[in-house]
Amino acid sequence: MKNTFGNAVSLTIFGESHGAAIGAVLDGLAAGLPVESDYIVARMERRRARGDGLSTARIEPDKVEFLSGVVNGHTTGTAIALTIANTNTRSGDYAKTADLLRPGHADYTAYAKYEGWQDVRGGGHFSGRVTAAAVAAGSICERVLAGHGIRVYTHIARLAGVEDAPLSSAAGLVCPEPENGHFALLDPSREAAMQQAVRAAAAEGDSVGGVLETIVTGLPAGVGEPWFDSVESELAHIAFAIPAVKGIEFGMGFAMADQRGSCANDAFCMREGKIATATNHNGGVNGGITNGMPVVFRTAVKPTPSIYKTQQTVDYVNRREAELNIQGRHDPCIVARAAVVQNSLTAFGVLDLLTQRYGTLWQKHGEV
Amino acid sequence: MKNTFGNAVSLTIFGESHGAAIGAVLDGLAAGLPVESDYIVARMERRRARGDGLSTARIEPDKVEFLSGVVNGHTTGTAIALTIANTNTRSGDYAKTADLLRPGHADYTAYAKYEGWQDVRGGGHFSGRVTAAAVAAGSICERVLAGHGIRVYTHIARLAGVEDAPLSSAAGLVCPEPENGHFALLDPSREAAMQQAVRAAAAEGDSVGGVLETIVTGLPAGVGEPWFDSVESELAHIAFAIPAVKGIEFGMGFAMADQRGSCANDAFCMREGKIATATNHNGGVNGGITNGMPVVFRTAVKPTPSIYKTQQTVDYVNRREAELNIQGRHDPCIVARAAVVQNSLTAFGVLDLLTQRYGTLWQKHGEV
Amino acid sequence: MKNTFGNAVSLTIFGESHGAAIGAVLDGLAAGLPVESDYIVARMERRRARGDGLSTARIEPDKVEFLSGVVNGHTTGTAIALTIANTNTRSGDYAKTADLLRPGHADYTAYAKYEGWQDVRGGGHFSGRVTAAAVAAGSICERVLAGHGIRVYTHIARLAGVEDAPLSSAAGLVCPEPENGHFALLDPSREAAMQQAVRAAAAEGDSVGGVLETIVTGLPAGVGEPWFDSVESELAHIAFAIPAVKGIEFGMGFAMADQRGSCANDAFCMREGKIATATNHNGGVNGGITNGMPVVFRTAVKPTPSIYKTQQTVDYVNRREAELNIQGRHDPCIVARAAVVQNSLTAFGVLDLLTQRYGTLWQKHGEV
Amino acid sequence: MKNTFGNAVSLTIFGESHGAAIGAVLDGLAAGLPVESDYIVARMERRRARGDGLSTARIEPDKVEFLSGVVNGHTTGTAIALTIANTNTRSGDYAKTADLLRPGHADYTAYAKYEGWQDVRGGGHFSGRVTAAAVAAGSICERVLAGHGIRVYTHIARLAGVEDAPLSSAAGLVCPEPENGHFALLDPSREAAMQQAVRAAAAEGDSVGGVLETIVTGLPAGVGEPWFDSVESELAHIAFAIPAVKGIEFGMGFAMADQRGSCANDAFCMREGKIATATNHNGGVNGGITNGMPVVFRTAVKPTPSIYKTQQTVDYVNRREAELNIQGRHDPCIVARAAVVQNSLTAFGVLDLLTQRYGTLWQKHGEV
Repeated sequence: MKNTFGNAVSLTIFGESHGAAIGAVLDGLAAGLPVESDYIVARMERRRARGDGLSTARIEPDKVEFLSGVVNGHTTGTAIALTIANTNTRSGDYAKTADLLRPGHADYTAYAKYEGWQDVRGGGHFSGRVTAAAVAAGSICERVLAGHGIRVYTHIARLAGVEDAPLSSAAGLVCPEPENGHFALLDPSREAAMQQAVRAAAAEGDSVGGVLETIVTGLPAGVGEPWFDSVESELAHIAFAIPAVKGIEFGMGFAMADQRGSCANDAFCMREGKIATATNHNGGVNGGITNGMPVVFRTAVKPTPSIYKTQQTVDYVNRREAELNIQGRHDPCIVARAAVVQNSLTAFGVLDLLTQRYGTLWQKHGEV
Repeated sequence: MKNTFGNAVSLTIFGESHGAAIGAVLDGLAAGLPVESDYIVARMERRRARGDGLSTARIEPDKVEFLSGVVNGHTTGTAIALTIANTNTRSGDYAKTADLLRPGHADYTAYAKYEGWQDVRGGGHFSGRVTAAAVAAGSICERVLAGHGIRVYTHIARLAGVEDAPLSSAAGLVCPEPENGHFALLDPSREAAMQQAVRAAAAEGDSVGGVLETIVTGLPAGVGEPWFDSVESELAHIAFAIPAVKGIEFGMGFAMADQRGSCANDAFCMREGKIATATNHNGGVNGGITNGMPVVFRTAVKPTPSIYKTQQTVDYVNRREAELNIQGRHDPCIVARAAVVQNSLTAFGVLDLLTQRYGTLWQKHGEV
Repeated sequence: MKNTFGNAVSLTIFGESHGAAIGAVLDGLAAGLPVESDYIVARMERRRARGDGLSTARIEPDKVEFLSGVVNGHTTGTAIALTIANTNTRSGDYAKTADLLRPGHADYTAYAKYEGWQDVRGGGHFSGRVTAAAVAAGSICERVLAGHGIRVYTHIARLAGVEDAPLSSAAGLVCPEPENGHFALLDPSREAAMQQAVRAAAAEGDSVGGVLETIVTGLPAGVGEPWFDSVESELAHIAFAIPAVKGIEFGMGFAMADQRGSCANDAFCMREGKIATATNHNGGVNGGITNGMPVVFRTAVKPTPSIYKTQQTVDYVNRREAELNIQGRHDPCIVARAAVVQNSLTAFGVLDLLTQRYGTLWQKHGEV
Repeated sequence: MKNTFGNAVSLTIFGESHGAAIGAVLDGLAAGLPVESDYIVARMERRRARGDGLSTARIEPDKVEFLSGVVNGHTTGTAIALTIANTNTRSGDYAKTADLLRPGHADYTAYAKYEGWQDVRGGGHFSGRVTAAAVAAGSICERVLAGHGIRVYTHIARLAGVEDAPLSSAAGLVCPEPENGHFALLDPSREAAMQQAVRAAAAEGDSVGGVLETIVTGLPAGVGEPWFDSVESELAHIAFAIPAVKGIEFGMGFAMADQRGSCANDAFCMREGKIATATNHNGGVNGGITNGMPVVFRTAVKPTPSIYKTQQTVDYVNRREAELNIQGRHDPCIVARAAVVQNSLTAFGVLDLLTQRYGTLWQKHGEV
């Protein structure tokens, strides 16, 4: 349904980069769940740009205002509408190059789809700005999951070719504590090298991409709604809503295609009286349903399309080829910010799947 | 909605491996569209097992019976229900090992989800058998798309490490003619090496995986329904419904994560009076919307979990570790058969997206 | 979604009057629920025609075949596909008058919608025949509800002007035992007068209509999903899917429009330690949510459009006015049969609403 | 999906009576459609209370603010989020009687569903206040339909027993011009008697109800998506989302139940070269699909539950019976205001059905 997704819990996203506000409607939450301002602020802060040369110079306060569904820090059980005002907009930056299609961006496809009526200011609906609303809504879901011992954590597995420490199988069983930095890393010592790589690209007017890895722990076995609403289907659907995501793989993913079955299969074993698997090549999902091991997947984030190098393009209005020199304020790398978005939307998806099985009331009262 | 997917066009899948029949309900098609028996039979035949050592020895006639929605070889406009009888079932094969969880399979997760009430015969709802229904329904969609000049083609990009010829950028612009063989390849001369690799694994009681690549040509720019129902979201959702798919990437995909923006962006150009891109790194999709270039994506297919080597596992009923020696009839490689499923379901997804934009009547009358 | 409805539980209906079979896919049921053949057969039998002058002379065995989702008389947790073969079809009856639009029927609207490609035999998708599939699916839901002490009962409140006994407020609190007859009445002594009225109309080649009243008991307070998925919205949506239903009203319904608030409001009281209402003018629903009183509503069933009197109509093909004398086998009154359909689909709707709140697993394990 | 409804076009409603704002997200509109401020203001004005003794003394400016999806008075093609601030709130009015359940209201059911966490101020989510958002969104749809020659008009067919002039069959064929008054009547001379009846009830601390009649003209034949998404199902689903609606009937409705088929059927005839019906007993719908005649239906609006007379009720917290004397500002009659809501939401539903058949682009470019 276009800007709405979810079954038992649903999320509607709206807004444009330079409109009055962006926002979300989160529906299907039980009444009486905590909506903790500090928690949300901390998540928003992690997604927010820094103006430090690593992210865009457009700094927004990103204050979340609740219009409905929340009273005294708790859900009321009705739809939660939240908005985040757009304050620091400089639409003039875009005026000079408005007819020149930015390569890698949605300029042309928006023209084609909306026939010229789209809001072009700042990328409109296709701006990464819109993801702030997803983070606000998703962080509420994260908090609900945490109350049931379910944790979602996303780290930058690779950025501009620099690798984070791997999720060892041991690490795969416990959720790393989210640190407070802008770069979510298992090994914070890698941050310097990553920043270095970003600054190097930025210095050349260029941008870099990376790979995110998300892990969900604490999920019981038996969650997921195949045939069509498998865990992978639901989480992939959501991941590809995030601008710049171009790939997703679960567990061993694409590497599994080159394995033999005897290596790729996860042998079952008994661990502390429970059924477990010795390895987690399948990323915690078999047949679209959780098997009680951590759900693990990676998403590919392409380099920011907005670069300052001269690019070949087309003048849409005059239908002729042209050179483009992009103005405006852009991130040389959005991977760190995308990590927060990926995490938030995953939390939403996981809560939706759990609610289908256990019911709305479970969110408040349930054991899993 | 669990076993139903789609917005303007919807597909419901049902059935178990050893039940009376598997089937599908395809809804949302305009009236008067051709439902060509020969076309469907040819697609079903490509998915069908051969009993040639490359696929399972369970051979099914796979005759598609229409219960509703089709009269005189044309759609009536109402829901199309189709069934495919299960005839060659040997449930006894599974009896001896019924309590031993097969690694890589959905045995354990089905136990967890269905609490022991699931149909365990032949893998039940999680058998690849169920995909026959998807192929039957999807091939109807393929035929509708063909009437509008839209082609969907899936080849085996890699199997057991053996690569097919690459989709050159030139090849990316025209849809290769689907050949009639069981192995869908751009370069049929690679088939021998692939078969060799499959037989080698099979000889050791093992299995192999691979990578599929799908290309959709003829799509106009402007198709896709972001924020949530982007082209990638819809096609990924569907792809992960296919058993054994563990990853999907669009265009350059994961490789894009290691590129700089200046390399990853697709420069726009004018080609034959139309806006096009010089490269297709984004796989024909920007901002979740088609840009008029071919839509290209790859899916990772894991090696068949059913292998004949001894595996470590758990006896679910007695909750103790055990060794498993699988009986039954299984494919040492399902990649070639999965290619047909991937293709069929992609056609369904593309038709759904087109119908949202252009309407149901467009399927019959429309220009794109 | 056209032929699919429901949120947590979904129902897909397919089939045409003279096609191979009609059927349904019921999805979203927990595993391990009883699917009792005797129960279903009894419900099917109540819907079935008698050939007794009160209903159509087309007698069908209405044997329900399960293709998936049921093993050993219990749900497996996957989609339940069921079919009912069409055996007693005499399409020739319709040939002579195929171009003449039957007043009150869907002939013309089907032409308009399906542009002449619809299955016209026996009314096609618009035949009351299709409701047999709804009864089969709904009776499974009825049985699940019964396991939780929730009963759905529909009686013929009025037929051809003959009234059944009223649901007194006392009767409103306990569910009348469904009797075994074809006519579901609170006062079986009224059946003779009703039959008399039907036969009188039939003797003149005419038909009669009536009003059904449905009561649902045992529902806890707090069920319903406003704003849009109120109890009334969900049940009304379903009721209008039944051919011939032209109105629905909850509680006092239209009569409430002429009352003052002081009369229409239901005063709250304590009854056996529980909050209750002294009257039930609101039909057990306030603000779209159950209040713990029985849910009560009435549906208007129009007289069968197929009558044997000469009617004025239009020849669709030749676009000229014409006289129509209907052939074929038709019920002079479908009210008694519609009662079973109304009851079955209500059970489905109620189960869907309960499952949203309490979860899928609740169906098997839950307390309400 | 709870607070979201629709297929090709979807509407999400949020807000509470005394929260920061109420609002809506309208999604699925084509780009470039007019969003005329004057048109919306006029519709909002008709719904607004007057403080004239006929409606509540709470007067709100009801200014609609667009957060997204609208630029320069036209749709951009993305989700339209709109909010209406709550300014004139006096929550203190409710404090004294907060534990006393108001008969006919959703107080008790909200307690049961939301377990005490609901926003109780001013009726919260169950206040008629929320309907202002539906009017704002629906009036955009009305304007789109008007561009295609499709008109939706709702009049007060009966109020406190005083009848408006009937929709003659002649009037049924052309849409009456909406007048500018607060009371939408075919015969404005009836307003005085209606107002008199309202004031008489108000003088006694009581309230009155009524019946609305809606007519949609200009619809082509062939619109509607049975089995489940018939025209009646979609419009009834929406109508019962409106607080206080307790019944709906199409065409002759409940009166049809007492007719014989020979009277109830609408004979077909040729009129100005087109197929039409001589009468419109079926309200423009056969088999759930439009037949080209005006779609006509009536909804029952119950008397306002908030009355000033002393009522018997229960103290929810102390679980004992009590007497209630309601404070606060309430309408003695909401029928006139509900007419605008009914009209707006009908326009939304009709646009959704049309878009499924003709496509999103049709909204902008299409012929019907």
